[in-house]
Amino acid sequence: MASRPETPLLDRVSTPADLKRFSDSELARLAHELRAETIAAVSETGGHLGAGLGVVELTVALHAVFDTPRDKLIWDVSHQSYPHKILTGRRDRIRTIRQKDGLSGFTKRSESPYDPFGAAHSSTSISAALGFAVARDLGGAPDTGAGDAIAVIGDGAMSAGMAYEAMNNAGHLKKRLFVILNDNEMSIAPPTGAMSSYLMRLYSEAPFHTLKDAAKGAVSLLPEPFQQGAKRAKEMIKGMAVGGTLFEALGFSYLGPIDGHDLDQLLPVLRTVHQRATGPVLIHVLTKKGKGYAPAETASDKGHATAKFDVVTGQQKKAPSNAPSYTKVFGETLTALASDDPRICAVTAAMPDGTGLNLFAERYPSRCFDVGIAEQHGVTFAAGLAAGGMRPFCAIYSTFLQRGYDQVVHDVAIQRLPVRFAVDRAGLVGADGATHAGSYDIAYLSNLPGFTVMAAADEAELKHMVATAAAHDDGPIAFRYPRGEGEGVEMPERGEVLEIGRGRMIREGKRVAILSFGTRLGEVRKACETLEARGISPTVADARFAKPLDRDLILRLAAEHEALITIEEGAVGGFGSHVAQLLAEEGVFDSGLRFRSMVLPDVFIDQASPADMYAVAGLDAEKIEAKVLSVLGVESIGKRA
Amino acid sequence: MASRPETPLLDRVSTPADLKRFSDSELARLAHELRAETIAAVSETGGHLGAGLGVVELTVALHAVFDTPRDKLIWDVSHQSYPHKILTGRRDRIRTIRQKDGLSGFTKRSESPYDPFGAAHSSTSISAALGFAVARDLGGAPDTGAGDAIAVIGDGAMSAGMAYEAMNNAGHLKKRLFVILNDNEMSIAPPTGAMSSYLMRLYSEAPFHTLKDAAKGAVSLLPEPFQQGAKRAKEMIKGMAVGGTLFEALGFSYLGPIDGHDLDQLLPVLRTVHQRATGPVLIHVLTKKGKGYAPAETASDKGHATAKFDVVTGQQKKAPSNAPSYTKVFGETLTALASDDPRICAVTAAMPDGTGLNLFAERYPSRCFDVGIAEQHGVTFAAGLAAGGMRPFCAIYSTFLQRGYDQVVHDVAIQRLPVRFAVDRAGLVGADGATHAGSYDIAYLSNLPGFTVMAAADEAELKHMVATAAAHDDGPIAFRYPRGEGEGVEMPERGEVLEIGRGRMIREGKRVAILSFGTRLGEVRKACETLEARGISPTVADARFAKPLDRDLILRLAAEHEALITIEEGAVGGFGSHVAQLLAEEGVFDSGLRFRSMVLPDVFIDQASPADMYAVAGLDAEKIEAKVLSVLGVESIGKRA
Repeated sequence: MASRPETPLLDRVSTPADLKRFSDSELARLAHELRAETIAAVSETGGHLGAGLGVVELTVALHAVFDTPRDKLIWDVSHQSYPHKILTGRRDRIRTIRQKDGLSGFTKRSESPYDPFGAAHSSTSISAALGFAVARDLGGAPDTGAGDAIAVIGDGAMSAGMAYEAMNNAGHLKKRLFVILNDNEMSIAPPTGAMSSYLMRLYSEAPFHTLKDAAKGAVSLLPEPFQQGAKRAKEMIKGMAVGGTLFEALGFSYLGPIDGHDLDQLLPVLRTVHQRATGPVLIHVLTKKGKGYAPAETASDKGHATAKFDVVTGQQKKAPSNAPSYTKVFGETLTALASDDPRICAVTAAMPDGTGLNLFAERYPSRCFDVGIAEQHGVTFAAGLAAGGMRPFCAIYSTFLQRGYDQVVHDVAIQRLPVRFAVDRAGLVGADGATHAGSYDIAYLSNLPGFTVMAAADEAELKHMVATAAAHDDGPIAFRYPRGEGEGVEMPERGEVLEIGRGRMIREGKRVAILSFGTRLGEVRKACETLEARGISPTVADARFAKPLDRDLILRLAAEHEALITIEEGAVGGFGSHVAQLLAEEGVFDSGLRFRSMVLPDVFIDQASPADMYAVAGLDAEKIEAKVLSVLGVESIGKRA
Repeated sequence: MASRPETPLLDRVSTPADLKRFSDSELARLAHELRAETIAAVSETGGHLGAGLGVVELTVALHAVFDTPRDKLIWDVSHQSYPHKILTGRRDRIRTIRQKDGLSGFTKRSESPYDPFGAAHSSTSISAALGFAVARDLGGAPDTGAGDAIAVIGDGAMSAGMAYEAMNNAGHLKKRLFVILNDNEMSIAPPTGAMSSYLMRLYSEAPFHTLKDAAKGAVSLLPEPFQQGAKRAKEMIKGMAVGGTLFEALGFSYLGPIDGHDLDQLLPVLRTVHQRATGPVLIHVLTKKGKGYAPAETASDKGHATAKFDVVTGQQKKAPSNAPSYTKVFGETLTALASDDPRICAVTAAMPDGTGLNLFAERYPSRCFDVGIAEQHGVTFAAGLAAGGMRPFCAIYSTFLQRGYDQVVHDVAIQRLPVRFAVDRAGLVGADGATHAGSYDIAYLSNLPGFTVMAAADEAELKHMVATAAAHDDGPIAFRYPRGEGEGVEMPERGEVLEIGRGRMIREGKRVAILSFGTRLGEVRKACETLEARGISPTVADARFAKPLDRDLILRLAAEHEALITIEEGAVGGFGSHVAQLLAEEGVFDSGLRFRSMVLPDVFIDQASPADMYAVAGLDAEKIEAKVLSVLGVESIGKRA
């Protein structure tokens, strides 16, 4: 057990209401303790660290000034919400965060009334806060009364169009609404985009060391802040120091920038706007990701996400890996292929490291594009690149590709453009939980005419599929692969271009055929070992393609076996449904076939290890074995000892 | 045949290259002829009129100054592209527009090299243009060389986050790129949002009657525009008259606003930027939708979309309708329900008329929200409203809901919030063609845990489903219905709250059961009439729900018939796939069932009447009859005389 920090003030906080009794200087000491507790907790569990450390003072100030949970405090993305969780009655469970049956790593409505709106994907907070503000004014919650709505959103999240749409609408509706722009010059990756440069200019024009004075100067105008006339407060809200015209153009009052680690600035500013604001207000707060913990402050990712670590040294305790990650195999394979084809380029939506494109970007900086958190634009930008003669790889996690779905349909598929989609984090993802699960891409891509959809069964297959995509000019193509390490298979020297729409036989057996799409193949193999011991020897094939289907293979498997079972890491409507449609149309069901399709169940599965999540999902070796036994009518009770 | 206008100059144009030989005053006369020809053509075909009339001069100027198709001219939405089509070799087919086998109502890559990027959904043009600009600089099209990329985008389309994402990225990449902001103070509906007010301030600060002088003043600085020094051109591009800071904040040089109907302003400005620009430039052009045709200019929608009409009077030639439109039934039913439930509110993304919410907005203006072309925000805003105690109806066409898919998953479904989705334009939509088809929503909604998904078989059913949604607080619910008139059924006084997950029997028959989801039920009935004459009497049921399925009904139909056929107006992966999954899991296929699932085929279907499109899709009465005969093994040759 790691030693716990001394936290006498924090120990007196069970809900945010307790903060109301603290003096400003006590709040400053409380922030210090909250930071220490956050570091200590994450050192034991791993998780998102840097973002939480950046908002410790802001968290204390918001809860001290506003009246949560009556006021709705909405953390964008919400990976910075650990300090918030500690202050809102969840300190006793903070060391279960991101673990099975533990606290979520994000805000979650079902977890606490202090989480009025869950998040995990970026840039939703202003829309949600506007919804709360409007609902309040319409009398939507007569029981809880007219609370405020406060969105806390990072500068990286501001690159998403959704945030702009929300600002545009909020500026029009003119409801009282607070947006805290938490500007740490850093999303997960260093920020890109003109907005980021703009924000930098905003505060570079008023150098940081004078801001504190500026804020103090403004505050000094308010010896007793709440006794001031409306006019003076309005002047303050209108823009204390510099710029802000962009936000003002969108109808917001702009206040800032202020030092987000200085409660002497945060508290009076928040108290003033809380007392005086009538319309939408944007408060521009400067923070440092990883603040107050040297190993995080000095890390290139500012301690964004970490394994368990030693608090004193900052050394992370990572398990040694046995195989390269799928992500790395993708990045390396693409980089190698790009030397042969100058048309290959790559697009990421603020995830150069997460997608493995950092490797590609190092080698081919002019051919790699980080468009920011902007999947809609990213997909259509890739379509434009393809129409202009390039061969873009658009590397977006399955769950985030949902953000660009219309663009996939309208700009890529209908125009049959050769955009290649590298769909990482396919299937269940572990500690990030339900919000990050890549459950739907098989379904939502495979029903698009002209699309080719592949899933890799292991890291060698992924290498082949990257090569296959690179050689595929006839319309769009996608290949999906999971988070994490590969299976440890031998890696080929080069990726081989696969025949489109052809699966591969894994083992020839009898009675039952299992047709796998994706990395469940490993569990299928395990199930076969157990089944062999019972005298059942399944045939196993790897479909490789959900679209186009390998008709010959599927019809042959159906014809030569009593039973056919498909398995995939996706929801109903995907691979198994396409197989069922083929079997139905071909009349295979007319005379009977024991057909089953194993898919993700109809529930959102909470965080756990991926293996535990797949067990919950009923897609592990044990459940595959049980499915085979049940479909063959063999008793599964009394399994071999 | 309508009389054709005299067009001596236009008659000399077969490609835009011909414009290079015209003097500026000839170009002005050409614009006049082009306007007359556009009006004459649309009067014969119907279609989008107002937007095209607004850009006649801009179209002439762009083609006169730039070198299309080497330069890539990308029309956002592209319903304003009729004059462009007339100038780019398609005048001989312009009177086939939006008709079966005719020209598309939108730009289309397969139709012409002058359409480098197709469109139909809004706000994609800047992303695509940036893709072309980057591809050019990377040498993506060595054959066509280094052409320019020009996006023409309306002020309404600028409310979409995607446009902001693209500007943010373009401002960062600093490539030579032209964005023409076609500001007509009007999307389909009057514009909403702070951006719109901002644009209005931009030019209200420099009153319109002085702008012409201002532009002339600036141009007079350039007696021979191309001999001027770079500095002066740069000054001009930097901002001729007023404002522009928002665009400059995003990294664009801002020029404008200029009068988009005055070639004396358009031509020199475009020539100058064409000659001088090095980075991204935004040219703010003021136009009037419907310009130059009095009946359009004076219409409330500025002649946005029209039936065939009389050119002299502007009178539209509409066929009398026999039944209320689905859209109107939705709008009226919701309005009536809202008087009983003050929590009911409504969200539209710039489509108050198209969705029927105009009726609701008239009665309950404070409860109706037009968020602009901003589906991402609209969905999450609705989620916020729901979390705040309201009961929002989010009315978005099926094809546009694709824009908010991630928000549907992440903000609504995972949080199980009671947002009600009114999914209009479900299935094939007719003249708008493949880009507007609502083909995927059944699949992409039905695989979300906790979602309820309905489809109305007729307008009375829609009325019931609106009432059912209004009564449904247990998570999200969607109901889909097609474009156009209802079936002419008798309408109930009030909508009845349906039992969740229960279908209804339509007729009891033998041997074959047809289970319909949605408005194909009418075609199923027709097919049954023909089949009866052959001695085959199918059982017919209306599923009403794709989720949750009516298990009892489905299993009973399967048990009591030789064959079961599902039919829906959607792609594979939807209703039929869920039915197949149920049948498979229940072991119904084990002993044989003639199961078929009739879905939209795996092609994008070009525009025609909806009936013709469904014939192409194989989902009309004739194909249903053939499917029944084939599944029963009855010869379909030698049909009854």
